[in-house]
Amino acid sequence: MSSHNTGLTWELIQEARARILGKVHRTPLMTSATLDTQANAKLYFKCENFQKVGAFKARGATNAVFSLSDAEARNGVATHSSGNHAAALARAAKLRGIPAHIVMPNNAPKSKQASVSRYGGKIILCEPTLQARESTVERVIAETGATLIHPYNDLRVMAGQATTAVELLEDVPDLDVILCPVGGGGQLSGIAVAAKTIKPSIRVIGVEPAGADDAARSFRSGQIVQMINPRTIADGLRTSLGEKPFAEIRRYVDDIVTVSEESIIGSMRQIWEVLKIIVEPSGAVPYASLIENKLDVQQQRVGLVLSGGNLDLDSLPWMHPQSMPPPVR
Amino acid sequence: MSSHNTGLTWELIQEARARILGKVHRTPLMTSATLDTQANAKLYFKCENFQKVGAFKARGATNAVFSLSDAEARNGVATHSSGNHAAALARAAKLRGIPAHIVMPNNAPKSKQASVSRYGGKIILCEPTLQARESTVERVIAETGATLIHPYNDLRVMAGQATTAVELLEDVPDLDVILCPVGGGGQLSGIAVAAKTIKPSIRVIGVEPAGADDAARSFRSGQIVQMINPRTIADGLRTSLGEKPFAEIRRYVDDIVTVSEESIIGSMRQIWEVLKIIVEPSGAVPYASLIENKLDVQQQRVGLVLSGGNLDLDSLPWMHPQSMPPPVR
Repeated sequence: MSSHNTGLTWELIQEARARILGKVHRTPLMTSATLDTQANAKLYFKCENFQKVGAFKARGATNAVFSLSDAEARNGVATHSSGNHAAALARAAKLRGIPAHIVMPNNAPKSKQASVSRYGGKIILCEPTLQARESTVERVIAETGATLIHPYNDLRVMAGQATTAVELLEDVPDLDVILCPVGGGGQLSGIAVAAKTIKPSIRVIGVEPAGADDAARSFRSGQIVQMINPRTIADGLRTSLGEKPFAEIRRYVDDIVTVSEESIIGSMRQIWEVLKIIVEPSGAVPYASLIENKLDVQQQRVGLVLSGGNLDLDSLPWMHPQSMPPPVR
Repeated sequence: MSSHNTGLTWELIQEARARILGKVHRTPLMTSATLDTQANAKLYFKCENFQKVGAFKARGATNAVFSLSDAEARNGVATHSSGNHAAALARAAKLRGIPAHIVMPNNAPKSKQASVSRYGGKIILCEPTLQARESTVERVIAETGATLIHPYNDLRVMAGQATTAVELLEDVPDLDVILCPVGGGGQLSGIAVAAKTIKPSIRVIGVEPAGADDAARSFRSGQIVQMINPRTIADGLRTSLGEKPFAEIRRYVDDIVTVSEESIIGSMRQIWEVLKIIVEPSGAVPYASLIENKLDVQQQRVGLVLSGGNLDLDSLPWMHPQSMPPPVR
């Protein structure tokens, strides 16, 4: 990375680390002799499901909010999200004592709305289309002077997510490979830059649902492929790649592999049953690649990012294996 | 405790600690700002759901198996159990390289049988009555020369379970109170003896389902009350108290309180949703007492024993709130 780098730098990641210290959890690793034997590898699960707000998104949102100058911060922050970024941004804004304007589609689950409200976020409902979301956020920003914090296409957010890899390599310096879910690419890009800086020989692999394989196709073609009609239970991974994450992913990620819905559900269930922890479908995606034998990790030390643990306990996928979420625009 | 003590002594607990070191996990504590605020107390959840075989039973079974002389061990061990003790004893015997004969009722769930088989235990099925279980174990012992390891009415088992409290007080020396589930009493008695030895001013409270309140009634009357017709989802707590645990419980436990089925289910769900970990109904019983405001723990440091994490993920209690398990003999 040259000093003229306009992308994600190691310096930005180190600043993020210092900035969010004490404001988010340094999450633990979990291991399992049973899963190690099954994979013939030594697996280290990075428990971002135990992170504040139940997902890694707390890192990026906290870094972004605390990166703002007092003048910028005064008018608050805004975003459109129906997922973990919404709660993470609301929480970070509350920590700093500034308003958070969260645009959500009017069909967002009540539980997600409740989570944002609990952290003091101001919810603005809109029609459930990308166009309505974007125009509503623009209007909110025009009216309030709030700063937009994009869920992934933002260097401050990417730098925050990168801190996961810094912790992982502090705890396991001789790690051979990191498996990370990929949706918008904020986490994968951050982890790739951090991990390759700390240990250039490490492999970083993105894993995504076959039903939302825009990142794998973008990676192969060298150009961002938009995800038009994602069909996956992994609701955190339905978005298309952002430009800023994609630039880092092209440079630093070794491969992106895809996994089936069946493997994602099987992975989630095994993690629940064996590790005794709650992981959401998106967070179970990396381990699904080992179930499918998609990667050669034999006898290696493998870090797997369990990205989050938020889901509706009333409707678990193994109860309705035939169901498939509707296409999302 | 005098030197003529025929019950559970601190010396037995210290020996157990040394004996099981490296053979079972030293389990972590979890905390939650959300649950602390709700309870107006500082809560420390002792994660025995992350223990080997998914429950605290690994401690007692391992101590018992490794307490045997080589001559005793040669013919193996035996027990009757359909729960976590069965898997724990099978695993401990496998570690020592001796046979484990596990008598199970022929209606025991396939998942429980599979768990015992996975650890190399030899399953002997019998009719699902207490009489059939006991006579079958007697026959197995007569035929094999195996040593009976009772799930809770055994000082070696109680000493093993006691090590949970030793760890808890090492991690949080200024703990004010420990809340522990009570079924047969092996864990509660062990924890009470250990905790009161280390910190005489600590309070130790047993918590049990109102639908299996034999321990509370025994505690008040001073005599063991048999549990004839337990009705609770907390399958680990349906047994009656053993005599050896009861002797310690009378001496060292401060109180035993009961909780409703609704609170147990609510507790389990909150632990899943907020802590993002899997706890079985029996392990959710202590926290249920805080939901019910049964205890004054305001501003105190409270240890809660999450005793295990084994349950059938296909049938979660909030899916069928009206259902109640049949009476168990």
